[in-house]
Amino acid sequence: MKRLNTSPISGMQELLPADQAVFDRLKSSISEVYHSHAFQHIETPTIDRAEILFAKAGGDTEKQIYKVFKTLETADSADEALRFDHTVPLARYVVEHANELSFPFRVSQIGRNFRGERAQKGRFREFYQCDIDIIGRGSLPLAYDAEVILTYADALKRMRLPDFIVRISNRKILSGLIENLALEPFAKDIFSIIDHAEKVPLDATREALIGLRLGDDAVEKILDFIDIHGSLSEVKPKLEDFDYGSETYTEGLGELFAVLELLESQGLKNLAAADMMIVRGLDYYTGTVFEAFFRDHKHVGAIGGGGRYETLAAHFTDQLLPGVGGSIGLSRLFYILQENKLLSDFAPTPVDYCLLPVSSADFAFACEVASSLREQNFSVDIDFTDKRLSDKFSHAAKIAQFAVVLGETERETHKLEQKNLLTGEKSELII
Amino acid sequence: MKRLNTSPISGMQELLPADQAVFDRLKSSISEVYHSHAFQHIETPTIDRAEILFAKAGGDTEKQIYKVFKTLETADSADEALRFDHTVPLARYVVEHANELSFPFRVSQIGRNFRGERAQKGRFREFYQCDIDIIGRGSLPLAYDAEVILTYADALKRMRLPDFIVRISNRKILSGLIENLALEPFAKDIFSIIDHAEKVPLDATREALIGLRLGDDAVEKILDFIDIHGSLSEVKPKLEDFDYGSETYTEGLGELFAVLELLESQGLKNLAAADMMIVRGLDYYTGTVFEAFFRDHKHVGAIGGGGRYETLAAHFTDQLLPGVGGSIGLSRLFYILQENKLLSDFAPTPVDYCLLPVSSADFAFACEVASSLREQNFSVDIDFTDKRLSDKFSHAAKIAQFAVVLGETERETHKLEQKNLLTGEKSELII
Repeated sequence: MKRLNTSPISGMQELLPADQAVFDRLKSSISEVYHSHAFQHIETPTIDRAEILFAKAGGDTEKQIYKVFKTLETADSADEALRFDHTVPLARYVVEHANELSFPFRVSQIGRNFRGERAQKGRFREFYQCDIDIIGRGSLPLAYDAEVILTYADALKRMRLPDFIVRISNRKILSGLIENLALEPFAKDIFSIIDHAEKVPLDATREALIGLRLGDDAVEKILDFIDIHGSLSEVKPKLEDFDYGSETYTEGLGELFAVLELLESQGLKNLAAADMMIVRGLDYYTGTVFEAFFRDHKHVGAIGGGGRYETLAAHFTDQLLPGVGGSIGLSRLFYILQENKLLSDFAPTPVDYCLLPVSSADFAFACEVASSLREQNFSVDIDFTDKRLSDKFSHAAKIAQFAVVLGETERETHKLEQKNLLTGEKSELII
Repeated sequence: MKRLNTSPISGMQELLPADQAVFDRLKSSISEVYHSHAFQHIETPTIDRAEILFAKAGGDTEKQIYKVFKTLETADSADEALRFDHTVPLARYVVEHANELSFPFRVSQIGRNFRGERAQKGRFREFYQCDIDIIGRGSLPLAYDAEVILTYADALKRMRLPDFIVRISNRKILSGLIENLALEPFAKDIFSIIDHAEKVPLDATREALIGLRLGDDAVEKILDFIDIHGSLSEVKPKLEDFDYGSETYTEGLGELFAVLELLESQGLKNLAAADMMIVRGLDYYTGTVFEAFFRDHKHVGAIGGGGRYETLAAHFTDQLLPGVGGSIGLSRLFYILQENKLLSDFAPTPVDYCLLPVSSADFAFACEVASSLREQNFSVDIDFTDKRLSDKFSHAAKIAQFAVVLGETERETHKLEQKNLLTGEKSELII
């Protein structure tokens, strides 16, 4: 027999059952919260037309797309590919089914996407993304921006993550500031430098800005600007100080304040704050942008984010479909939580009970006990092997929290004892 | 703008939100039951080494495998492919992680697999399979066969499907009968004819058997044999009549009776029965086989099944890993349920409440009401648009079961009225 390599291919997150149970629990928490906020779950095919996927992908993404072809076809005919995010298939979906959907369309997508990136720590080639979007037809009120951020924060809360904060800005504010300072030709560079400011010392950001030859005064203004953060009442006066007349700036400010006000009225003051350092990459966002961070573990970077975009499907339709969305990159987040040992409060065993019938004469009784526990929503294994009881206990200890021995006595008396395999403690099990 | 085709590629099951909600509910039912029976959920990568996937795939399957390559690579170098079932990746997983797993390993897999089949009704190129398997190391007692069937039947029950029955046989019985009749050279053909017997008239099966030139006596014996079905007490005497001394036959009978006895002791008498027509294809099963059917809709064919196999990973290891498993092909099943209008008792709307604030002054109050309803696990939309109230109602009617208008009066009195959008009925909403 040829010895085959049985490891998963590089860049894949293949989990053992106990870790998978934790992963699944995080995923259900997200899904429950998205559902409670009326985001309607959809699933698009993993495989889509290459022309659809390549229509929007640019730069690095385009190189990372996996193309697929059937074994019997020649590879050159490969006109299908694996989706690399949820946004492009969503655009196709909304255009295709527009007449059957009701707008504003609140939609969630939780699934695996694919990018043939160079394998590196915490970056996976196949990865879960948990997305929400609200899509309007023609227009979409600003209150939906707050609704997406509220849902996002609720999801992170439900996941029982370490203390986090959602930092919010609005792209129009920085664009307006750049107009105010008459630095439009440098806009893209300034956005890019600020997007990296979090990860480098302040001096490096200053150096980078100086390198653009903006003038010392402009550099210091920008540095002061990106240092502005806090609650609505804290940031309002500071941001108004920077307003020298750009309409874009004023518009951005109005939007940011409205979103903050709605969030603060929902008791989110401790979980969300304005922060002018948030740019959210060079992505397609045009208004509100937000990113979530762990308060005490800032070094791990943003754990996700989102924002407002002008239109969802410019490549497929002339219709204006403005939207606002957010995304939790669950595979990467799970990796970060594991690496930084931030998952300690989760259930440590994938199974609740392991029942240990002493002999085959006890099988039927074991099934009865299992059935009754399962009705109470417990996860129940029965060990039907003929191993010695001590070996059965060690199997149980590897997967379950409680073990219950079921022999002749238990069968006759119906008095059951459960052993907590984590603490060694014994107690009566009433079924 | 080039007008792109926005339909999903052929052979894909892309659902509208309301249908997706039903699909998701079926999927969670399955997942809950699998979990309650202590099947530990795992997910293997969608993309795996081609040499692993091709090691086991034979015949048609091999031609249907989707190979993948990154855009920057040449297609000829495509040494990765999409999994076409859960069994091959599971074999790789169990061999790779054997030292970290505890056996018997109860494992569940719920996910999408891929086959580049010719597109046809009810057969999808990307499809959900919901699998359970119990894998032993060296040996695996027969009680696990009953446990898999019990779990399988529980899952179908939880899904609230139409009346169904799980029909059970054991491959050794038919093999033993063939030995008894000294028809070994025709074994493969006989298995194949019986596997199709369900779908054709009895005479066609007779003709096919006669075509093998087995002798009239043998043909009638086989026809009598495959007509045997029923509870343990019903089939036992009939099957014992056919026993002319083959050890394989006797062994198969012993196994079948033991499995039936355990299932009947668990109250499964009405949901499970022996049936000698069940062969379960020409697959790799070696003992117990079972398939589920709708009692009143037999024409739709088997809705899933499973069985016992000699060893899981013959291609990757010398270790004997006997197993027993079952699979629900959820995409196909959902298609059948939809086509035959068998889904009527499910929740008709993806969302529970749609709140309709009259003006932006009511937004904050609407958020408060939503928050309280969401805490009670309701799915709650808020319409933040400035549409007329009648338009808001028609949006609500498309997605939700209840609408609640929130204006100045409601804000001041906190007396809320909910309108059931399905019945038109109005009642007080107490939050």
